[in-house]
Amino acid sequence: MGNSFGKLFKITTFGESHGRCVGVVIDGCPAGLKLEKKDIQEELEKRKPKAEGISTGRREEDEVEILSGVYKSYTTGAPICLLVWNKKARSKDYEEIEKGLVRPGHADFTSFFKYGGFSDLRGGGRFSGRITVSFVLAGVVAKKILKERLKIEILAHTIQIGEKKIEKVKISEIRNNVYKNKMRCANLKVAEEMEKLVEKIRREGDSIGGKIEAICLNLPLGLGEPIFDNLDGEIAKALFAIPGVKGVEFGRGFEVVKLKGSQNNDLFRIKKGKIITETNNSGGILGGISNGMPLVVRIALKPPSSIFLPQKTVNVRKKKEEILRLKGRHDACFVPRAVPVVESILAIVICDFAQRAGLIERVISKSPYYH
Amino acid sequence: MGNSFGKLFKITTFGESHGRCVGVVIDGCPAGLKLEKKDIQEELEKRKPKAEGISTGRREEDEVEILSGVYKSYTTGAPICLLVWNKKARSKDYEEIEKGLVRPGHADFTSFFKYGGFSDLRGGGRFSGRITVSFVLAGVVAKKILKERLKIEILAHTIQIGEKKIEKVKISEIRNNVYKNKMRCANLKVAEEMEKLVEKIRREGDSIGGKIEAICLNLPLGLGEPIFDNLDGEIAKALFAIPGVKGVEFGRGFEVVKLKGSQNNDLFRIKKGKIITETNNSGGILGGISNGMPLVVRIALKPPSSIFLPQKTVNVRKKKEEILRLKGRHDACFVPRAVPVVESILAIVICDFAQRAGLIERVISKSPYYH
Amino acid sequence: MGNSFGKLFKITTFGESHGRCVGVVIDGCPAGLKLEKKDIQEELEKRKPKAEGISTGRREEDEVEILSGVYKSYTTGAPICLLVWNKKARSKDYEEIEKGLVRPGHADFTSFFKYGGFSDLRGGGRFSGRITVSFVLAGVVAKKILKERLKIEILAHTIQIGEKKIEKVKISEIRNNVYKNKMRCANLKVAEEMEKLVEKIRREGDSIGGKIEAICLNLPLGLGEPIFDNLDGEIAKALFAIPGVKGVEFGRGFEVVKLKGSQNNDLFRIKKGKIITETNNSGGILGGISNGMPLVVRIALKPPSSIFLPQKTVNVRKKKEEILRLKGRHDACFVPRAVPVVESILAIVICDFAQRAGLIERVISKSPYYH
Amino acid sequence: MGNSFGKLFKITTFGESHGRCVGVVIDGCPAGLKLEKKDIQEELEKRKPKAEGISTGRREEDEVEILSGVYKSYTTGAPICLLVWNKKARSKDYEEIEKGLVRPGHADFTSFFKYGGFSDLRGGGRFSGRITVSFVLAGVVAKKILKERLKIEILAHTIQIGEKKIEKVKISEIRNNVYKNKMRCANLKVAEEMEKLVEKIRREGDSIGGKIEAICLNLPLGLGEPIFDNLDGEIAKALFAIPGVKGVEFGRGFEVVKLKGSQNNDLFRIKKGKIITETNNSGGILGGISNGMPLVVRIALKPPSSIFLPQKTVNVRKKKEEILRLKGRHDACFVPRAVPVVESILAIVICDFAQRAGLIERVISKSPYYH
Repeated sequence: MGNSFGKLFKITTFGESHGRCVGVVIDGCPAGLKLEKKDIQEELEKRKPKAEGISTGRREEDEVEILSGVYKSYTTGAPICLLVWNKKARSKDYEEIEKGLVRPGHADFTSFFKYGGFSDLRGGGRFSGRITVSFVLAGVVAKKILKERLKIEILAHTIQIGEKKIEKVKISEIRNNVYKNKMRCANLKVAEEMEKLVEKIRREGDSIGGKIEAICLNLPLGLGEPIFDNLDGEIAKALFAIPGVKGVEFGRGFEVVKLKGSQNNDLFRIKKGKIITETNNSGGILGGISNGMPLVVRIALKPPSSIFLPQKTVNVRKKKEEILRLKGRHDACFVPRAVPVVESILAIVICDFAQRAGLIERVISKSPYYH
Repeated sequence: MGNSFGKLFKITTFGESHGRCVGVVIDGCPAGLKLEKKDIQEELEKRKPKAEGISTGRREEDEVEILSGVYKSYTTGAPICLLVWNKKARSKDYEEIEKGLVRPGHADFTSFFKYGGFSDLRGGGRFSGRITVSFVLAGVVAKKILKERLKIEILAHTIQIGEKKIEKVKISEIRNNVYKNKMRCANLKVAEEMEKLVEKIRREGDSIGGKIEAICLNLPLGLGEPIFDNLDGEIAKALFAIPGVKGVEFGRGFEVVKLKGSQNNDLFRIKKGKIITETNNSGGILGGISNGMPLVVRIALKPPSSIFLPQKTVNVRKKKEEILRLKGRHDACFVPRAVPVVESILAIVICDFAQRAGLIERVISKSPYYH
Repeated sequence: MGNSFGKLFKITTFGESHGRCVGVVIDGCPAGLKLEKKDIQEELEKRKPKAEGISTGRREEDEVEILSGVYKSYTTGAPICLLVWNKKARSKDYEEIEKGLVRPGHADFTSFFKYGGFSDLRGGGRFSGRITVSFVLAGVVAKKILKERLKIEILAHTIQIGEKKIEKVKISEIRNNVYKNKMRCANLKVAEEMEKLVEKIRREGDSIGGKIEAICLNLPLGLGEPIFDNLDGEIAKALFAIPGVKGVEFGRGFEVVKLKGSQNNDLFRIKKGKIITETNNSGGILGGISNGMPLVVRIALKPPSSIFLPQKTVNVRKKKEEILRLKGRHDACFVPRAVPVVESILAIVICDFAQRAGLIERVISKSPYYH
Repeated sequence: MGNSFGKLFKITTFGESHGRCVGVVIDGCPAGLKLEKKDIQEELEKRKPKAEGISTGRREEDEVEILSGVYKSYTTGAPICLLVWNKKARSKDYEEIEKGLVRPGHADFTSFFKYGGFSDLRGGGRFSGRITVSFVLAGVVAKKILKERLKIEILAHTIQIGEKKIEKVKISEIRNNVYKNKMRCANLKVAEEMEKLVEKIRREGDSIGGKIEAICLNLPLGLGEPIFDNLDGEIAKALFAIPGVKGVEFGRGFEVVKLKGSQNNDLFRIKKGKIITETNNSGGILGGISNGMPLVVRIALKPPSSIFLPQKTVNVRKKKEEILRLKGRHDACFVPRAVPVVESILAIVICDFAQRAGLIERVISKSPYYH
């Protein structure tokens, strides 16, 4: 259990890093959405490793297959199963791990004991970053619905890696620059510095953490169901499904700890006949409900646990302390690859809430074929 | 919708700040748990306002009623309805708000529009901190189950208010000191400084934010259901149900952004025959599953939005900019009152996971009456 | 667990027969529905015991309390807690049962063992017909939404008791006659015969079963979510929550076993520009989705298990065979009291589906107070 | 939405009759269950069409693929995706239907309007009996868990087709005979008569309904979660997912309508130290909870809607009355093929309840490979 998310727009994920495939079943997509292989392929490219220094050397040639729920290029209302076959996994690198040598920081240890030693530990198995392919697959559908029906736009970008961080950026910079550089950073100059840092860390056989910000524009007022199914809570929960997330914050986030009410309160005013807030410290959410301002959320991503320095660990099958010397190809930083994943997660959650609020009709459009 | 939480240990909350009551229905509590009014009353006291400077002047004389699910002092397996009647609410203070003057930072604005002007806005209505009474009521039951069956202990404490923060504390200090001072701080010296700060802020008619840490001890290895129903995600979601939470982090949290893998990875070792980690940067969670180390989570709480300084805002009924001058009694800081609430939320989530993992038998003990 | 039903219109029930109360929390009712005590009281009257011979002698003076979710006579969008206090329960009649003498046909036996002897067995406790008060309370809200928003009408009536059954009736007879006779039968002549039969059975100290039909008129085409959350499946599940239901069937129901396709298929035709079926053997559901014809469902209700004839049974505490001689007041037939309950259950399910289909806006109407 | 079932043992189905495949994702299967292709293949054979006269001429060469969740022949605790590719579908036969000619009795009509004309109507699409392959795939896993862990046995058999029905049968006859004859009937003599009847009906171009009974042996006392998630309600709901089911009844079912309490009550007695009931009119369920006696449930299956006689219907695209003359190959009775499907559905529901009751450990056994 635990592999599904959503109430009306509901996804169920499956697959492992070195298994046959990773995939997703999307239940609750309205009928009549145009959905073609190329739409999905484009988004998959975004999370592909591009640069040796940053991403895994492993070249993933991910190609989606649409197994159900789409007929003559339109969604039918039936569940959509999307799948990417795994290729070229080098399972040999994981022999030691399978023999019981759990990697520090990874889920090998908890997975091994929770599942009584039956887990597929190759490449992290079900706990690998590879599974975020499922999120991207579902995210394509969610983004399309949000864009075509509600003109909602979702943007994510790298705002910090190690000590390197960006200052203020404009929305236009995010739109234009993020997918033009390897670091997924909106500021091209900082992107370069980040790249150098990651390259340095990689050469040291080490890894580095980072921070991603996501913004959701044109979100209608009123999304979110208090008290428990509020917008921030559900987004936070979904973001923690991304391997390596250690913190989630909205608006001013952890800065509010030091703020006074007079500094933090966003004052209301009327601008061009619309009620807005002068500042957006709340990150677009009041009482768990969207207030019409841009939704702003940030996550902290830990440094990848796979490093090439020797590490003390335990062989859980032998119950003995041993030294782990990692093999294989590993990201020195997974922030860049996580950027499109964060976008996808956000789209999935918001699509679900938009449906709960009755904003998305069950039948989306008229097919040229039928009518 | 949205007022329920949990899968096997499931709570449904109801009630408003100035309505007749706040309450909760707990479904999934095993039969045979001893549960008496005094057990609940004790916990309710913990979130009571004690000090004029810190908490609302409003004296809440909360008294629980057990409406169902308990017979001869033992739970029966039927749903438990617990309720506290509201008393002495001064609804007069909210006349202006009801007339449409939405308070900056509050949910008045979103609530008003989401519910078409039908919300009970008195005292924040359904969005008031008052509703956390429901969490505490359910938390009593969850804590009892966890303590009696699994010897799990849950501790929360104030770690920062404004710029005042504690350094390292011992578990024993948390156990001994938290409920001995108004600030719910484990370090009595810092508690005093915090108290002065809050008093100063209160006199200024302003408010201040803070940070709470919660620790869960003796948590068994293996709780949490990846990928989406993982332990961190569910805890985060539940914590965002507390009004004013703007961020949630586990272990090193947002610090991981700057860390290298070699600094952040917790190395495994064997100690007294048990596999542990040398450090606990992960906060006790690997891959969304508890690893047997203490679970550590922190939240950022914003400064109360109710301040006595005049604020620019909008009258949503008149669609006109106006100035808000708040009346009534309001907390200058709600961190201290949130401490037992955080404990409760954590207990509720963990109790649910322990049941999903099959660790809590459906019938808890043998009643002296029956056998 | 198990005490909740629904996805977007969600009810959570609580209370026991001889406990303090029975109640319900309704989550997902749109804001702006006019809801007053008298609306609810009227419906409660319908399930009240009226005639000595038929219903329990116990006079239930049920009076509803609205505990939350309603402000100035309109729903607010917050969860609505409705409650009826229990009065005048004669728990003395249940002393033997509490000592372990489980009543044949009742849930005493399963409840005793499932909950380790901690169940409140007085009056059947949580398994009593008394708990259907909760369904009626929630049904009032569901019916109002359906009627005011979608002009959906729900009718239930007794069609058989023992061997006495009605033949064809007109909708107008159901509308006019059901609540005019004690048996809740649309045919007044048959009603009289049924009444005599039940009175005879009652004098024998025995009880008798029966059948109820429910019809839903003006149901829009397209309700129901295949494959599992289909309209028939969800209705069936909800109807089995009524104590004593042993079968549920739609349209021609169990008769289809003997039919040929050429007899059973409902042929489509166009009438006044609308596509209808000539017959309605399907009971208004095709592929789990409403087809716009009247929905027709029937349930089999067993004879009440409480009879005054001595019965062989087992004392589960002593693990010894004994003879049970029942005391107290008991219905000889609970079909009449179940009629409004069936209506309520149907309304609850359909209200949930209408919301899933996006047919009910989250805010229902404009309050005269606010606008 | 609607394509998932279960709470802890959760299945999500996908696929269409003439699409690329039908499949299922099983979430919540404990780790350590031995699961091999041949186990599944065996069960798939059971629902295969065997005899021309009874089943569709279409020869389904279904071969399962295990896409995830299994490693080295053991389940890993990760979601299990099982899939069968569709072959040899003759979509040409459905050209008229795609042009708008909805078939009486089928879901074409409701599906067309619910999904705005975007449904894949070929072969019934998502509403085809073909989708029950998904139930069988998941049923294999559920049955294995129940058998290996709890020694629960599930049997289903044809008890009536048209007017032909069996009288009492012994459990041993069900065990031995059902899969030895085309009709899935425990009485071989009646099976022969049924076969002749179906053959006669087939030659007439017509179809016929029938009744299936399922029995669950060795069910532990205490399964089922009242009030709504009771054992009968959940089973009923799940059975209605099988296309063509029009009624579900437990124990004496609709017969109880005519019974007196003194006839229907099952008296308790002690036999070999165990409390049992003398009769089993309840069908093994009291108050929604299993009582340890055999669970007995029956379904009414309608005659297949696909008949070769000309039928009046409507072209929904042209909104015009037309005559439908069906092409293709169709079952004259789908009772025999439904028998293993009913077994599967029952296994899936009971497996879920056994997990809710904590009866199935999350890790099932020890793999020879690992330990």
